[in-house]
Amino acid sequence: MFVILVYDIGEKRVNKVLKKCRQYLTWVQNSVFEGEITEGSLKKLKMELGRIIEKQEDSIIIYAFENTRYSNREIIGLEKNSLGIIF
Amino acid sequence: MFVILVYDIGEKRVNKVLKKCRQYLTWVQNSVFEGEITEGSLKKLKMELGRIIEKQEDSIIIYAFENTRYSNREIIGLEKNSLGIIF
Repeated sequence: MFVILVYDIGEKRVNKVLKKCRQYLTWVQNSVFEGEITEGSLKKLKMELGRIIEKQEDSIIIYAFENTRYSNREIIGLEKNSLGIIF
Repeated sequence: MFVILVYDIGEKRVNKVLKKCRQYLTWVQNSVFEGEITEGSLKKLKMELGRIIEKQEDSIIIYAFENTRYSNREIIGLEKNSLGIIF
């Protein structure tokens, strides 16, 4: 499946979250990751993130899509990920 | 259509962008908006944002989906939008 992950994390934990997300997904912008991921890996990622964050302070939203057939991504302004991955 | 909008904007312009996005979409988390929007309104929003941002510094990503039938949203940790809108 395809996921978009956005986080809002306290400064003390943000580097750990960044590092963990990088293991599974592609960084696209400040606090935003995206990528194809298996259900098993997503489950693992969520469990690992759950161990890092403070649940009363931090927030992570994961949007999961079965496919990206009907979707479109558009960037206004600067493309921060210079690889320019567009699905 | 349904859109997820994420932005990474210089401090000087961030309030203007926030205010503009609020006119069209629902705030869900720091730098993240989502919502149902017509093609016409989305076009208008993009044009208006294009006038506010510095294209060499700021970045806005808009993911657009024809529908959300196959999608799922999950929050780990705190739900920052207390309205708890879930599609």
